[in-house]
Amino acid sequence: MKINANYLNLEESYLFATVERKVSEYKAAHPDKKVISLGIGDVTLPLPPVAVTAMQEAAAELGKKETFRGYGPYRGYRFLTEALQKQYAARGVALEEEEIFASEGAKSDLGNILDLFARDNRVLVPDPVYPVYVDTNVMDGREIRFVDGTAENGFLPPPPAERADLIYICSPNNPTGAVYDRAGLKAWVDYALKWGAVILFDAAYERFVADPALPRSIFEIEGARECAIEFGSFSKTAGFTGVRCGYTVVPKALVREGSSLNKLWLRRQSTKYNGLSYVVQRGAAAVLTPEGQEQIDRNIAYYRENARLMAEALEKMGVWFTGGKNSPYLFFDCGGDSWSFFDRLLEEGQVVGTPGAGFGRNCKNFFRLTAFGDRDNTLEAVERLKRVLG
Amino acid sequence: MKINANYLNLEESYLFATVERKVSEYKAAHPDKKVISLGIGDVTLPLPPVAVTAMQEAAAELGKKETFRGYGPYRGYRFLTEALQKQYAARGVALEEEEIFASEGAKSDLGNILDLFARDNRVLVPDPVYPVYVDTNVMDGREIRFVDGTAENGFLPPPPAERADLIYICSPNNPTGAVYDRAGLKAWVDYALKWGAVILFDAAYERFVADPALPRSIFEIEGARECAIEFGSFSKTAGFTGVRCGYTVVPKALVREGSSLNKLWLRRQSTKYNGLSYVVQRGAAAVLTPEGQEQIDRNIAYYRENARLMAEALEKMGVWFTGGKNSPYLFFDCGGDSWSFFDRLLEEGQVVGTPGAGFGRNCKNFFRLTAFGDRDNTLEAVERLKRVLG
Repeated sequence: MKINANYLNLEESYLFATVERKVSEYKAAHPDKKVISLGIGDVTLPLPPVAVTAMQEAAAELGKKETFRGYGPYRGYRFLTEALQKQYAARGVALEEEEIFASEGAKSDLGNILDLFARDNRVLVPDPVYPVYVDTNVMDGREIRFVDGTAENGFLPPPPAERADLIYICSPNNPTGAVYDRAGLKAWVDYALKWGAVILFDAAYERFVADPALPRSIFEIEGARECAIEFGSFSKTAGFTGVRCGYTVVPKALVREGSSLNKLWLRRQSTKYNGLSYVVQRGAAAVLTPEGQEQIDRNIAYYRENARLMAEALEKMGVWFTGGKNSPYLFFDCGGDSWSFFDRLLEEGQVVGTPGAGFGRNCKNFFRLTAFGDRDNTLEAVERLKRVLG
Repeated sequence: MKINANYLNLEESYLFATVERKVSEYKAAHPDKKVISLGIGDVTLPLPPVAVTAMQEAAAELGKKETFRGYGPYRGYRFLTEALQKQYAARGVALEEEEIFASEGAKSDLGNILDLFARDNRVLVPDPVYPVYVDTNVMDGREIRFVDGTAENGFLPPPPAERADLIYICSPNNPTGAVYDRAGLKAWVDYALKWGAVILFDAAYERFVADPALPRSIFEIEGARECAIEFGSFSKTAGFTGVRCGYTVVPKALVREGSSLNKLWLRRQSTKYNGLSYVVQRGAAAVLTPEGQEQIDRNIAYYRENARLMAEALEKMGVWFTGGKNSPYLFFDCGGDSWSFFDRLLEEGQVVGTPGAGFGRNCKNFFRLTAFGDRDNTLEAVERLKRVLG
């Protein structure tokens, strides 16, 4: 029996473990100090009431013989996929219902989609990067090339000259908060079409885009249906990080080597998956009703205001940063080694963030803050940040 | 861009689609006839009340700021994994809590576990077989060998002489309902240890084992911790086919080529998965309380009585079959081509079952019935079956 030897090539990520250890040590040494964390990308506001009620009603339905449901459709119930279809349509993106697949999360789908692709494809990943894009391909032994996001290109790298087969784009980006405009995305779509590549577009943070000129879906770009798969999530949109619901859009026009990727993905999901929890699907569908949209808009507005407050402070201090406007993340130039800055911010300001060094080679002097915190804590953190940076 | 060409080697399974088409056609032609389905392996009794209440309370928790939870642990919350650990302990199987991984279903885990194994391993699959074992390995391009389950060995084939690297065992079996005794499983454990193979043990139907002499977990067999991974499910146990919850046990003693498979699986799940829905986890944990166990025991007893009634009828008719006693499935010799029998049973008795031909090459003259139906319908189906067979 041979194990998948590619697993031995995975690098251990000590980023969040190291952050956690340092914070624990600091707290143990300074039990009187109040530490504020703006480090983790998890939400803090509770679920919208419509989702709670819908899940409770769904559980009750399953508790009665007359309304019990067993196995559901592999792609999700139509009440959910049609609601997603309508949401896209409202933003001008016409999709067929059969192009949408509900699942328990974008992270799962981003990993599992790789089943469809040969192992000798070349993968292009922007650096800085959500580490999962790299690790899932290391597991398959694929060649990985990086394209450099830098302060010069605003962490929005343009396509390179060399060939790629699979391309990851996350916009609004984690960790930088940077958002591609239409021209920026169009360049990537053109590049993918030129090489016959497939773009894996991570749209987990699309809801934070406030500027109507910025694209929220890759399918707003002409030609994307022939070269892109989009991954969406209810996690940051509706606070579903613990409820688990995502969706993946695989256009029927996406065909490679004569095979429909939509059909391949359905085959993958029907063989290695058995559908998303009915209870969760009802909760997600409730979020997509007008009432649900109002409720989550209030939460998003709350997080956006957190981001605005932090962005305003950084601007006033003349600190260069990306994000903060159409994203829950702020990524700022901390003026030196990001781990040293981490230590200083914790020691002097009792604020926890995430060192850029953990996200790639191009951002060792950058630092990530998230807008998912409590308002009062965020305001206090801003004051402390001013003290430490000023 | 190259697709995973192994997908082109997948055979389309027309089994359930063909069954559905034939039934629809019959119903359209005979709108006055009452058709009873004992074909699909889905449950029909509603969720146990404890699970409904627990899920409703969990949803309410997530709706309040004070009790909101975001991302959960990759392996599941301790309240669930510890409850599973206790359930195993009560049956004499001592596991560490860290050996248990909760997930959204055994089917997902059975597919995803293959990420850990090299593609040039040889896979051994008993025939007849749950088609997913074969398809998931075809997707990876692994060599597949079959071991013959036959009427002679009671559809419980012993290990072959040749080498295998990965071995699938499902006991109680789908579709045959046959259950390995301790000696039968011990032979497989010894075989796996001899070749350094890994057994993937599908225990989805363990709850139907009534005979205390029969093993419900592979870990009841000495040596299994060094060679087996077990997949469990709440689907057939607690009616969770639509709620989605399973668990996988990867013993720490399972080491191959110097790597702990427990650590590899944790790495896989933390990279390509983001944990099971908190709401579902609360529902599953409630099922594992004494009150929950009483409630699901009543449901299992109901299905068991259905199986007993069908088994009794087959015995009286002198029809040879497996299952029916410690399993929700009955697999009987229908005396000729199973598709012809399907047509005859539908035409003459208006009863739907599943032709053995759909499960492999060794059971073309066998037919599967399930005990998951309604009692009155099952009783009526038995009378009709008697008429057609007699």
